[in-house]
Amino acid sequence: MSDTAAPPKGRPPRESRVEMTEIVLPSDSNALGTIFGGRVMQWIDIAGAVAARRHARTAVVTASMDELHFHVPIRLGAVAVLEARVLAAFRTSMEVAVTVHSEELKTGVRTLCTSAFLTFVALDENGRPCEVPPVAPETEEERLRMGQARQRRELRLAHKALRGLP
Amino acid sequence: MSDTAAPPKGRPPRESRVEMTEIVLPSDSNALGTIFGGRVMQWIDIAGAVAARRHARTAVVTASMDELHFHVPIRLGAVAVLEARVLAAFRTSMEVAVTVHSEELKTGVRTLCTSAFLTFVALDENGRPCEVPPVAPETEEERLRMGQARQRRELRLAHKALRGLP
Amino acid sequence: MSDTAAPPKGRPPRESRVEMTEIVLPSDSNALGTIFGGRVMQWIDIAGAVAARRHARTAVVTASMDELHFHVPIRLGAVAVLEARVLAAFRTSMEVAVTVHSEELKTGVRTLCTSAFLTFVALDENGRPCEVPPVAPETEEERLRMGQARQRRELRLAHKALRGLP
Amino acid sequence: MSDTAAPPKGRPPRESRVEMTEIVLPSDSNALGTIFGGRVMQWIDIAGAVAARRHARTAVVTASMDELHFHVPIRLGAVAVLEARVLAAFRTSMEVAVTVHSEELKTGVRTLCTSAFLTFVALDENGRPCEVPPVAPETEEERLRMGQARQRRELRLAHKALRGLP
Amino acid sequence: MSDTAAPPKGRPPRESRVEMTEIVLPSDSNALGTIFGGRVMQWIDIAGAVAARRHARTAVVTASMDELHFHVPIRLGAVAVLEARVLAAFRTSMEVAVTVHSEELKTGVRTLCTSAFLTFVALDENGRPCEVPPVAPETEEERLRMGQARQRRELRLAHKALRGLP
Amino acid sequence: MSDTAAPPKGRPPRESRVEMTEIVLPSDSNALGTIFGGRVMQWIDIAGAVAARRHARTAVVTASMDELHFHVPIRLGAVAVLEARVLAAFRTSMEVAVTVHSEELKTGVRTLCTSAFLTFVALDENGRPCEVPPVAPETEEERLRMGQARQRRELRLAHKALRGLP
Repeated sequence: MSDTAAPPKGRPPRESRVEMTEIVLPSDSNALGTIFGGRVMQWIDIAGAVAARRHARTAVVTASMDELHFHVPIRLGAVAVLEARVLAAFRTSMEVAVTVHSEELKTGVRTLCTSAFLTFVALDENGRPCEVPPVAPETEEERLRMGQARQRRELRLAHKALRGLP
Repeated sequence: MSDTAAPPKGRPPRESRVEMTEIVLPSDSNALGTIFGGRVMQWIDIAGAVAARRHARTAVVTASMDELHFHVPIRLGAVAVLEARVLAAFRTSMEVAVTVHSEELKTGVRTLCTSAFLTFVALDENGRPCEVPPVAPETEEERLRMGQARQRRELRLAHKALRGLP
Repeated sequence: MSDTAAPPKGRPPRESRVEMTEIVLPSDSNALGTIFGGRVMQWIDIAGAVAARRHARTAVVTASMDELHFHVPIRLGAVAVLEARVLAAFRTSMEVAVTVHSEELKTGVRTLCTSAFLTFVALDENGRPCEVPPVAPETEEERLRMGQARQRRELRLAHKALRGLP
Repeated sequence: MSDTAAPPKGRPPRESRVEMTEIVLPSDSNALGTIFGGRVMQWIDIAGAVAARRHARTAVVTASMDELHFHVPIRLGAVAVLEARVLAAFRTSMEVAVTVHSEELKTGVRTLCTSAFLTFVALDENGRPCEVPPVAPETEEERLRMGQARQRRELRLAHKALRGLP
Repeated sequence: MSDTAAPPKGRPPRESRVEMTEIVLPSDSNALGTIFGGRVMQWIDIAGAVAARRHARTAVVTASMDELHFHVPIRLGAVAVLEARVLAAFRTSMEVAVTVHSEELKTGVRTLCTSAFLTFVALDENGRPCEVPPVAPETEEERLRMGQARQRRELRLAHKALRGLP
Repeated sequence: MSDTAAPPKGRPPRESRVEMTEIVLPSDSNALGTIFGGRVMQWIDIAGAVAARRHARTAVVTASMDELHFHVPIRLGAVAVLEARVLAAFRTSMEVAVTVHSEELKTGVRTLCTSAFLTFVALDENGRPCEVPPVAPETEEERLRMGQARQRRELRLAHKALRGLP
């Protein structure tokens, strides 16, 4: 990880990428012998927050989460691998994608089990929102994903009026 | 709560409504003295799951979460009140709205702090998705919210192609 | 919930009533597949404390607990519903009754599993005991239960001399 | 601890005595910087259950708790010392006294902070109540406390009719 | 426990001995139905820290742990008994031995399951290392173990150069 | 990660390397505002176990831990990054090195805070020790560290007679 301050031209996604590894213990599971949904959400929130902190180099708070999908349940005793990446930065907020894979013991093959998009807000020392550097994509895929993050943001703002609040 | 089986014409939202009350302890908080985001998500998942169980009268699993918004932080020591309501039922799944309010100690005034929409899938005894009764709205507001839930579902399916997976 | 200060003629029990809903997860259970007794006590303490806070509109501390009975064990995976009600207020303390029911998945029928009486003391901003409003019963049952709470209090004081301290 | 089966003439209290030591961590505390009441109850339940197991030499379940008193709060960072002793055995149940002391760091002086009486029921391998050996007091104090335990039991049964259930 | 300040000639091991009792709950276990290694370590750290505090009569921090051996797994539902003893004191640090036994339900027989040596550093009110009283062994075994603790310390210093740091 | 079975010539360390990221929450801290030692040990045990599982491609149990050193305390709110690497494999066991770094928020600079060596034993489906592939070092440093791991193992066996068991 670079030891310099936020670069003027933006920070590449690899500088804020987070990997987090966990074993699903009985204290993480539900009565069905798979991971308790709320525990995955907790891990996703931590992994996402660290990615946002690494990008912003400030404290951050979770602002929202979207499209959290439980594709495949993770079994008790399995290894779970979380990966968090900052996709795009707006003025004081960042969209982070988090994936959770389970890892097959015998072969090491990984299966995508859960994924989500989170938005974090950067906070200065007085706890007020502060500006963050832009994301500087280095690959074609990163550029594509930055564009999709912007689309999602526009859709969110556009649908806000349409949708009822809980 | 009614002690009869799933009614043929659908179950009204009041039969599955959930209230959950918590005090924010240090073990629920982050280093800033407010509630840790992952803990709220855990509580939301539990409250939502109980509402879905009450509607379906079967075991349920969390399928997805959307539009989780942290509007206002909840402070250490505060009382948090969660409310979960089933808005709409599809064939084997249900959309549930969960709100989290904090309660002012001196006046009892409640402030909306967090809200989310979750989708749960009903499971039969073999762990396979099974049909759930429809929602039978009893008020104008419940009818409106059922319609919005359907809109959200269509938008989700429509945007699935547009949006990149994490 | 009313947004006014403590009424001069006392606060009716419905204003301080608490409902709390939980799912019994493996992390709440003992090796026999039922809820761990200490976890139920923890939930009872929280539910009771919120009821006392709502009545007193101040911070509160647990002073004592009596007649905690485990009538029926709650099984792993079950929904537990706690209800707490302020029965009577003395000068700076309140007696609160808490019940824990489990809820049958298929029928919604509730079974009383655990019950207890707790006493909480109201604290002012300096952490010293402060006066609380009286309870204003609105039904015959509430009047009856207020009387029983007073009886229990007198018995406690009367037997204090007779009984050995742990 | 003796490695023989339950003695015919009863088991002396010293054979089932339990000592348990804990440090009050932030995860055990409330927002006031003292121990969270529910956590003390959890520790008391565990200490009491081990004493009952040592007396009965079987699995046990918590049946009830009485006269739990919080005499003095225990501060965050303090050492808490629990002691549990079986006072009396009835046919299939046992009364256990548990005390919680805090320990002054500089002097080692201990202060009684919390105390309670618990009743545990012994269970055989099929989960049904089974007989336990009597308590064989060895000192005058133990004889006295066994008598008080019997008195408390009679009072409990006598007042059951008088008192309202929660 | 003596209520005087640290004696000039040293403190005997019995004054700092710690006993800690736990039941292995599902939240302490791994997917194999035995205790999760990390949880035993947590308990060992707490038991050792209390012993060091009792010897030093100051706050302490864990400096290192050595020769933690898992001899025999502890099963879910078992009673675990920890014992911690201060073996030797150096200028500002202490070596503490901790053992974990499981206790057979039917016979009370104890089996050594885990053991470890830990070093704690005493801290004054400013958080700086401060001197601790010497250990004053009272039995031949205590003298022997104090000597072994000194040997271990010399070996640690001697091998520091030889061994690679993680 | 390779999706083939254990290679005949040994598995290179990079295939079993583990990264784990955590935020130090109040529930992980002690009363001094730094991480609670027992929690770091828990994280180290999990990170090390995953590395051993990835090398052995079997279930593993912790056999021992050595030279756990707390070099620098980790503060509440900090990001902790754990790294685990398999250094050497013996017949049925593996030595794993785990390091814990804290990450400076403003600069991203990492400081080594805790380190340890752990030994894990591979288990077959019947829970009996089973053979593991050798480590195939790919760099000069990996070869050096494999040699040091062997030295440590010999010293452990040699000193076993000299040292007293706890």
